[in-house]
Amino acid sequence: MTERASETTGELIDGTAVVVEPEGRPFGDSTARAELDGADPDATGRALLAELSAGLGAGSVLTDPDTVRPYVHDEAEWAGYGTPLCVVRARSTADVAATVAACARARVPVVPRGAGTGLSGGANAVDGCVLLSLERMTAIREISPGERLAVVEPGVVNDDLRAACAERGLWYPPDPASAPWSTIGGNVATNAGGLCCVKYGVTRDYVLALEVVTATGEVVRVGRRTAKGVVGYDLVGLLVGSEGTLGVITEITVKLRPARPAAPRTVVGFFDSLADCGAAVAAVTEQGLQPAVFELVDREVLGAVNAWRNAGLPENAAALLLAQTDLPEPAAQAEADAILAAFDEHGATETMASTDETEAEALFAARRMAYPALEQLGMGMLTEDVCVPLPRMAEMLARIEEIGRRRDVRIATVAHAGDGNLHPLMLTPHGDAAARDRTKAAFDEIIATAVDLGGTVTGEHGVGLLKRDGMERELGPEVLALQRAVKAALDPDGILNPGKAV
Amino acid sequence: MTERASETTGELIDGTAVVVEPEGRPFGDSTARAELDGADPDATGRALLAELSAGLGAGSVLTDPDTVRPYVHDEAEWAGYGTPLCVVRARSTADVAATVAACARARVPVVPRGAGTGLSGGANAVDGCVLLSLERMTAIREISPGERLAVVEPGVVNDDLRAACAERGLWYPPDPASAPWSTIGGNVATNAGGLCCVKYGVTRDYVLALEVVTATGEVVRVGRRTAKGVVGYDLVGLLVGSEGTLGVITEITVKLRPARPAAPRTVVGFFDSLADCGAAVAAVTEQGLQPAVFELVDREVLGAVNAWRNAGLPENAAALLLAQTDLPEPAAQAEADAILAAFDEHGATETMASTDETEAEALFAARRMAYPALEQLGMGMLTEDVCVPLPRMAEMLARIEEIGRRRDVRIATVAHAGDGNLHPLMLTPHGDAAARDRTKAAFDEIIATAVDLGGTVTGEHGVGLLKRDGMERELGPEVLALQRAVKAALDPDGILNPGKAV
Repeated sequence: MTERASETTGELIDGTAVVVEPEGRPFGDSTARAELDGADPDATGRALLAELSAGLGAGSVLTDPDTVRPYVHDEAEWAGYGTPLCVVRARSTADVAATVAACARARVPVVPRGAGTGLSGGANAVDGCVLLSLERMTAIREISPGERLAVVEPGVVNDDLRAACAERGLWYPPDPASAPWSTIGGNVATNAGGLCCVKYGVTRDYVLALEVVTATGEVVRVGRRTAKGVVGYDLVGLLVGSEGTLGVITEITVKLRPARPAAPRTVVGFFDSLADCGAAVAAVTEQGLQPAVFELVDREVLGAVNAWRNAGLPENAAALLLAQTDLPEPAAQAEADAILAAFDEHGATETMASTDETEAEALFAARRMAYPALEQLGMGMLTEDVCVPLPRMAEMLARIEEIGRRRDVRIATVAHAGDGNLHPLMLTPHGDAAARDRTKAAFDEIIATAVDLGGTVTGEHGVGLLKRDGMERELGPEVLALQRAVKAALDPDGILNPGKAV
Repeated sequence: MTERASETTGELIDGTAVVVEPEGRPFGDSTARAELDGADPDATGRALLAELSAGLGAGSVLTDPDTVRPYVHDEAEWAGYGTPLCVVRARSTADVAATVAACARARVPVVPRGAGTGLSGGANAVDGCVLLSLERMTAIREISPGERLAVVEPGVVNDDLRAACAERGLWYPPDPASAPWSTIGGNVATNAGGLCCVKYGVTRDYVLALEVVTATGEVVRVGRRTAKGVVGYDLVGLLVGSEGTLGVITEITVKLRPARPAAPRTVVGFFDSLADCGAAVAAVTEQGLQPAVFELVDREVLGAVNAWRNAGLPENAAALLLAQTDLPEPAAQAEADAILAAFDEHGATETMASTDETEAEALFAARRMAYPALEQLGMGMLTEDVCVPLPRMAEMLARIEEIGRRRDVRIATVAHAGDGNLHPLMLTPHGDAAARDRTKAAFDEIIATAVDLGGTVTGEHGVGLLKRDGMERELGPEVLALQRAVKAALDPDGILNPGKAV
């Protein structure tokens, strides 16, 4: 069992995700459409379809509702979506360029998508759009140990790249929970994070160069292969995390690290109070320790794991902290000891450390089983993604608990504790409209609280549709105006993923 | 003796740099001026001066030629510069905002500058501009061990921040050679590199948030304090390295690392051939070793150091490689041994490793003395800054030697070998016009060669004035158009550092 099904709106049957329709469109407006300048949209659509089919081959252009359906939304619970004109399954940069150029001429929106594992609605269809799927562009073009880089097409699945790198003694660190399914193109479009970014950084930190199809259908290369370079503005960094609104990424050059030599050491601690838990995280940070993974699961998650697997985890614990160190020995032993001591000194009721890989796996089970265990509850699950300054994390956790109690919403939280990045998972009974309203209110309140505490409304999932209101709250009108000026400069007709993110 | 004087056009007297006028304006056009819409520039200038003096206090506005002179150019040999209307020495964000707003209204160019240690003319005056100096904004506002970040004003000197961080057990890694003088604001504006970026990244990798005065004089905050965040486009990354052309940076929040526990181990190797030397660098990289510093000095440098200090370095060597490892022991010992073995296996004629700090210092002397030793030659020194893919470095070094021979230009090269970032230092007798022409031709040819080898025309110094032609060659018209669209979006009237970089 993996995390994916739990982060979707569906269930796993024999390992295959079954898409369950979101229950409505409470968040975000996904029906934005580029200006058509008074042309008849139906005639425009028909002409565009004919042009795309003729240019790309009929097999690359899907219009049958049953084949289109799996493409129309990502895994964001409740994010709205519209009805696309068609799905284009691009096989090459030339396909992408031809599609975008045709859409630009017709002023029809283009919504690029990878594997559709996003959690904010960023890849959801808008009415009348061309859904441009990159999933067939799966070539790993190059892995260079001499330059420590790889060149891949956007449809390469994260874990496939990681596996190919491992064979060459190299490592691509960004490891979102969706790594077995999500694509590098999608990871780049959302600037995906993951578990090991607490020490090794997020996707943006690994992108050296991009081949991009611009809003006019032009193919350009930005960035560089060299280790350093300061020519011109950082268009690579600008495109990373732009959620398909500035260009369609058709090739990615990523930086790699040498493979890590040894299995990490794992340390865990249970805490009776969120304040103690927050103090322990702060102590680890302040002492200059650098865990390669530093996670938290809260009491709701512990309870769900116990209920599902009779795991015997202490249910009175407010939270569990899990840390891993990947230093070379004996420094790893010393770092593990120091983390353990920090846990003990800050009120941990129980601590454990692994001495081998099997033991480490067992200690990590509570984190690994979080999503599937919660899924057993058979409820809708809205995944939140706030991030706060580390010293405010305990307060944020307490506020989330309080909001859940007051709003009568069941909230289970997992967190990348070392980053202050919290994923409150908001559980709502299917078909209960009143519960949905309460959840929506809690969602808004959690976002507002994160901003009040100096944090951000999205640490790693992206703005998409779900966080557009939050983004306005966080950035304010002046910065939003700068963001929109950049969007207008690179996509003046607004055809790239309109209505999403900026 | 330090590196600074050698990277300037001047000499050190009692530790104070004496500015020597560049000998002409062969490179770049520094006299760009914003459109004045037909207004009388003199009247415009007088009115602006009156407004600035009234608003900021006369002491903050310099117009006397003798006091203005030290501000009109940076340390780029031969980069042109114009005559400014005045120098504003801002004390606060409010001063900066008032200055930019007044200039925006008057359509007068603003050229921001830090310590003026740049090497590409990026901070040089354009005719009629307001030179906006941030050197008085030197407050370190906050150093937070709990969040591993610091908040500083732009005029804080790099080494001052590093020292303040060290007192708290923290480390700000970016270490340009100018660190004792250059400011964080200037480092951010140019995305400065340094010695340790081979392992720890460049300035952009450490900037979390910025306070910026926009082209209209508005004060905005972009970025975040949190460890992660994906709201909107990465305006921070866009501003880093933008050389004052998109906004004036008035506050910087930088990420910090825990201090490194131990002194590094140093390994050196002399090589008789550049090919062997390149192969050794490649081998270190391919074996997954991660030196924290990995430098090269060539035979010209070795000769100059011998001539200056009778250092007894082998003059028949083509190059010397110097590496440092900062892993915890005993992993550092193992990495040092592996680097030494790689040097030996790839034809090093002589290798040495340090066992203590004093020894390490001695081994590094040839690198540290490179600039002052070359300066003893009493020639003009133009500092190049190309960066090539690591597998092409030996070829690039050979091509530089060949270009120097063929063009009859004396070129001494130091390099951040692990990054493929080369600094050919082009030595030209003062007052020799023919030699200047030959140097200019060699400069252009080195830039073209770097681009041909898949490299970049500037690894860490910036485009400024000297690399504008090279930038056009490297980026091509389509990417340049994107760059200019971004510039036009954020500075529609083109008042921010016109004629520089993009």
